[in-house]
Amino acid sequence: MRISERIDATMAAAIKAGQGGVAPAKLAAALEYAVTPGGARIRPTILTSVAMACGDDRPELTNAAAVALEVIHCASLVHDDLPCFDDADLRRGKPALHRAYSEPLAVLAGDSLIIMGFQILARAAGDAPARALNLIDILGTRTGMPFGICAGQGWESEENIDLSAYHQAKTGALFIAATQMGAVAAGQEAEPWEELGARIGEAFQVADDLRDALCDEDTLGKPAGQDDLHGRPNAVASYGVAGAVKRFDDILGGAISSIPACPGEAALAQMVRAYADKLVPAGARGRSTVPGE
Amino acid sequence: MRISERIDATMAAAIKAGQGGVAPAKLAAALEYAVTPGGARIRPTILTSVAMACGDDRPELTNAAAVALEVIHCASLVHDDLPCFDDADLRRGKPALHRAYSEPLAVLAGDSLIIMGFQILARAAGDAPARALNLIDILGTRTGMPFGICAGQGWESEENIDLSAYHQAKTGALFIAATQMGAVAAGQEAEPWEELGARIGEAFQVADDLRDALCDEDTLGKPAGQDDLHGRPNAVASYGVAGAVKRFDDILGGAISSIPACPGEAALAQMVRAYADKLVPAGARGRSTVPGE
Repeated sequence: MRISERIDATMAAAIKAGQGGVAPAKLAAALEYAVTPGGARIRPTILTSVAMACGDDRPELTNAAAVALEVIHCASLVHDDLPCFDDADLRRGKPALHRAYSEPLAVLAGDSLIIMGFQILARAAGDAPARALNLIDILGTRTGMPFGICAGQGWESEENIDLSAYHQAKTGALFIAATQMGAVAAGQEAEPWEELGARIGEAFQVADDLRDALCDEDTLGKPAGQDDLHGRPNAVASYGVAGAVKRFDDILGGAISSIPACPGEAALAQMVRAYADKLVPAGARGRSTVPGE
Repeated sequence: MRISERIDATMAAAIKAGQGGVAPAKLAAALEYAVTPGGARIRPTILTSVAMACGDDRPELTNAAAVALEVIHCASLVHDDLPCFDDADLRRGKPALHRAYSEPLAVLAGDSLIIMGFQILARAAGDAPARALNLIDILGTRTGMPFGICAGQGWESEENIDLSAYHQAKTGALFIAATQMGAVAAGQEAEPWEELGARIGEAFQVADDLRDALCDEDTLGKPAGQDDLHGRPNAVASYGVAGAVKRFDDILGGAISSIPACPGEAALAQMVRAYADKLVPAGARGRSTVPGE
């Protein structure tokens, strides 16, 4: 089965379980709305790829870990789009959840998806309870306080931002979760896989900055030029397009050389590079090298 | 150590861990704000009492379960107070979190506390991983979709409310979690403890209706008369004060007789009764029996 099919099947089962038989219908529908269309499913794909590179001897636990991570990522998008944060109209090319349903249902859908992520892991433990508990702990660390995406978003309410902690928590955390959880689902230690996740996260941030600066709303499925608008740090503003592309390539090289020794090391390196190529917007590599354009 | 001391010490350690060393300061402070003052800590007290009645052979796991349940309860209060839900000014006698900090920090504090609840349990597993995983599953079931407090709140967005499902999820769910998690933390089965939790939840709802109808804002620490204001179902409106008190006593009697056989059965029954007496507002038992007053 292809990775995307594994993720889609597990996601569909998880959402169906969350919708139950007697659930309030709008919130049940909102759960599905929040996780579709799936887009690239980049975090669960990385997680599954790492697990496969490590032998993937408990594929059901890997699938559960991948979907647990993705539903919490989707929850964070729903909450980030709320009027009190980005007040976004669009997400993945359709109305943001609070616009399509309501603000109360957006808060509740996010909360429900966070809870679902942890419950999926507890239920998938099978004969590997220690792995499942470790996965839950990692997922908590990389999503909550003080190191996870909640902390990352929390930094935006501070007058003095610790930029390194901010970026690590805001973008890096879920990629670290992806590589570490992939390894742990397959019975490996988490720690050696942190650097790969952190570097993929950095590369992803630069690619996101390039897309925010170069793509239009139709391509992004959400408003473009938001960093500029909100005065947020952006690699294109700092280094220019060509400088940002070079930075992306450097970080990616570091990411690949950080992959720990494992049976599927070569295939994993190839997958990371192939995925990364899709992240950089078409045209960015052919553009002027003048910084600050 | 008294139950309240066990809960307070475990809560303080959990919040400190969530605040970390590099966390954004306002969100870190908001976590503590959300869980203090503790008030009655009724759910973790019931949980711990049930565990003690069952032998409490893993007290650290019991403490973790109690605090996991309480932090998610506190998270639900923070989110329920948001402008898009109750838009509450006051909670536990001080400004609601979104008023004291901000709406973004209230959303994030709630999210962080939900995550913290699950992480506390994963970290406290020790030599009882199966118990910890079962506790995480129960906590997810009673907080998320389709049966938990998120579902309960979600019913309020429906045109046609399934009243039984609504009350069970909105108020009953966390009491069922309390009794079941207490039993599981001490190595017992969850299922026989569901009825006790459900009945305590019903009794609590009636007592809450009495307080909403009879107490003033200073006593409640939050606005009074809210059910009347929002047209929500209320036992006092349906049965009058004396009728509601009788209903409370009947439900409580059923709760106590549902306690499964266990070493500390008598002490648990006494504790439930003593706690319940505190829930009914002073004066309710001495009032007119005319319904609908």
